[in-house]
Amino acid sequence: MPTFDLAEHPHRRYNPLTGEWVLVSPHRSKRPWQGQQEETVCDERLAYDETCYLCPTNTRANGEQNPDYPATYVFDNDFGALQEATPVGSFEKGGLIRAESERGICRVICFSPRHDLTLADMEVADIRKVVDLWQQQYLELGSLDFIRYVQIFENKGAIMGCSNPHPHGQIWAQSTVPVEPAKETKQQEAYFEVNRRSLLQDYLTLELEEKSRVISENDHFVALVPFWAVWPFETIIISKRHFQHIGQMDEAEKDAYSHIIKSVTTTYDRVFGVSFPYSSGIHQSPTDGQDYPGWHFHMHFYPPLLRSATVKKFMVGYEMMGNPQRDITPEAAADLLRSLL
Amino acid sequence: MPTFDLAEHPHRRYNPLTGEWVLVSPHRSKRPWQGQQEETVCDERLAYDETCYLCPTNTRANGEQNPDYPATYVFDNDFGALQEATPVGSFEKGGLIRAESERGICRVICFSPRHDLTLADMEVADIRKVVDLWQQQYLELGSLDFIRYVQIFENKGAIMGCSNPHPHGQIWAQSTVPVEPAKETKQQEAYFEVNRRSLLQDYLTLELEEKSRVISENDHFVALVPFWAVWPFETIIISKRHFQHIGQMDEAEKDAYSHIIKSVTTTYDRVFGVSFPYSSGIHQSPTDGQDYPGWHFHMHFYPPLLRSATVKKFMVGYEMMGNPQRDITPEAAADLLRSLL
Ligand SMILES: O=P(O)(O)O[C@H]1O[C@H](CO)[C@@H](O)[C@H](O)[C@H]1O
Ligand SMILES: O=P(O)(O)O[C@H]1O[C@H](CO)[C@@H](O)[C@H](O)[C@H]1O
Repeated sequence: MPTFDLAEHPHRRYNPLTGEWVLVSPHRSKRPWQGQQEETVCDERLAYDETCYLCPTNTRANGEQNPDYPATYVFDNDFGALQEATPVGSFEKGGLIRAESERGICRVICFSPRHDLTLADMEVADIRKVVDLWQQQYLELGSLDFIRYVQIFENKGAIMGCSNPHPHGQIWAQSTVPVEPAKETKQQEAYFEVNRRSLLQDYLTLELEEKSRVISENDHFVALVPFWAVWPFETIIISKRHFQHIGQMDEAEKDAYSHIIKSVTTTYDRVFGVSFPYSSGIHQSPTDGQDYPGWHFHMHFYPPLLRSATVKKFMVGYEMMGNPQRDITPEAAADLLRSLL
Repeated sequence: MPTFDLAEHPHRRYNPLTGEWVLVSPHRSKRPWQGQQEETVCDERLAYDETCYLCPTNTRANGEQNPDYPATYVFDNDFGALQEATPVGSFEKGGLIRAESERGICRVICFSPRHDLTLADMEVADIRKVVDLWQQQYLELGSLDFIRYVQIFENKGAIMGCSNPHPHGQIWAQSTVPVEPAKETKQQEAYFEVNRRSLLQDYLTLELEEKSRVISENDHFVALVPFWAVWPFETIIISKRHFQHIGQMDEAEKDAYSHIIKSVTTTYDRVFGVSFPYSSGIHQSPTDGQDYPGWHFHMHFYPPLLRSATVKKFMVGYEMMGNPQRDITPEAAADLLRSLL
């Protein structure tokens, strides 16, 4: 019998950030595809679109008018999933039917006044303005005493449920810590407890030694395909310094972070020659006033495309009932991304 | 301040089967939709399609010919994500980079020789043949000593990554218990330990008393929208008798199970007047030879559609980084489904 080879044989990989596993089937990329194809969006956009509710000076659904903003713009989501005025309360029956009301604030962040750009198209200096706003928002929302977690994210592309191509992201800030950051809290704090170093710091040391999954790095950040990546071209940006949240980033780090975001997003756009769809999000420490010495700032990018601009990875039956599954290996994905830098 | 109302205010609901939460935003269904629309597949299919690799007598990609099967047909997936011959082995670096080889068997089950049917269109007597085959396969695969979990599932519809409309499902049987059934094992066994009754038995008692989320029932099964449903029209079929796996179903239960599958799938097809896409799957006890007194057989249906045949729910940025979020309440979804019975 041949010996086990990560590049050849089906295997499971462990995600130390969540404590969960992903099934990897390297041999399976040879499978023919006869299923659904996505539309390629022919992305001829105007710099200003009068029908866009995010463009400067336009009026939104609720009648409010956007200012003539020169760089970034943040406002409360007109259809937020969370609301500040939600009454506190809970519902319970027999211990098995349990609900708790949830207060929160949902905001939209326009990355640029230009309707026709994406983060990848923007100058690093302009991405830096987005980073500054993320920092300010995390600190502002996190300081409210009913806000215990601030989720900053972006859905890019119609295939990721984004209903407006104007470059923008969102913030959902809420009174409890959601499931995914709660898993990462548990795993990182447990690791720190034992090792007195952050899990991602030790992981970064291993990856920088090994190099096969690293895509790019600068003085303060590394972008890589994590060993446990679920999405075909999933990446993670990890800060070299171990700090808990974006509020602690200094000027040089904010510049370096802007640079690496530019690098990741432009590289993505070269994979299939289209503006690459993804959901991205920052994971960082909760804002509940507790100490989180193990938390280590990072940003995830989850892009859905697998084989081409029109064929995505479906996370369906087995993935929903069992656990995530991927075909190409993270090492093969990293090789490809690195070659497109 | 008004009092907390499940039908009005944003809240979190607890899923006792997984120990995780879902965010519910009842007020949010009023939000306008300007995003991606799916294609409605005009589903004019022939009873036999000579280009279909699942139709009787046709030749598959690997050169094998399908028999002229009269009812169901099972065969090893020609592009299985798991393989029986995988060498045993593992890979580890610094405790944070960890992989283990995974052996398994992937099978495809044709539900019918007819290319133009779905489970919803089939006679109950023919669905019963599918149930018989699931039972036989669970017992057969589960008896192999390297198989510790047997995942039976179906991806229905192109939107769920199904690449061939011929009615079929899959089985992925493998040497470890995947993440989702592992969570359900932990939760159900812990509950049984304390209460000496199964979690789902007690839950069923509450739901049959309350009735607002129950869609249909017969002598042996109940179909309902779980209190913690994530997908807009998610349902669960739960057996009234507490047993661990499909191998333990008796004749009357297999008939009743076929009936309730017919009822759920035909009701789904009435929601938006299209053949309703979904991923479904059976959760049951592992086949590792251990005793699982708490495990209670059930089947999940996760349909992606939200507002119409062309607008689905996107599980994207917040859902990937935080936790699942839904707009319409499970009670409203159950009302609608019940009205379409
Ligand atoms: O094997 P199939 O049906 O071609 O593939 C489909 O189901 C699998 C199991 O849920 C998924 O991994 C694939 O992404 C999906 O396209
Ligand atoms: O608020 P949006 O951008 O309209 O909505 C989008 O992102 C949300 C957060 O990930 C999701 O809940 C929605 O399903 C998606 O369409």
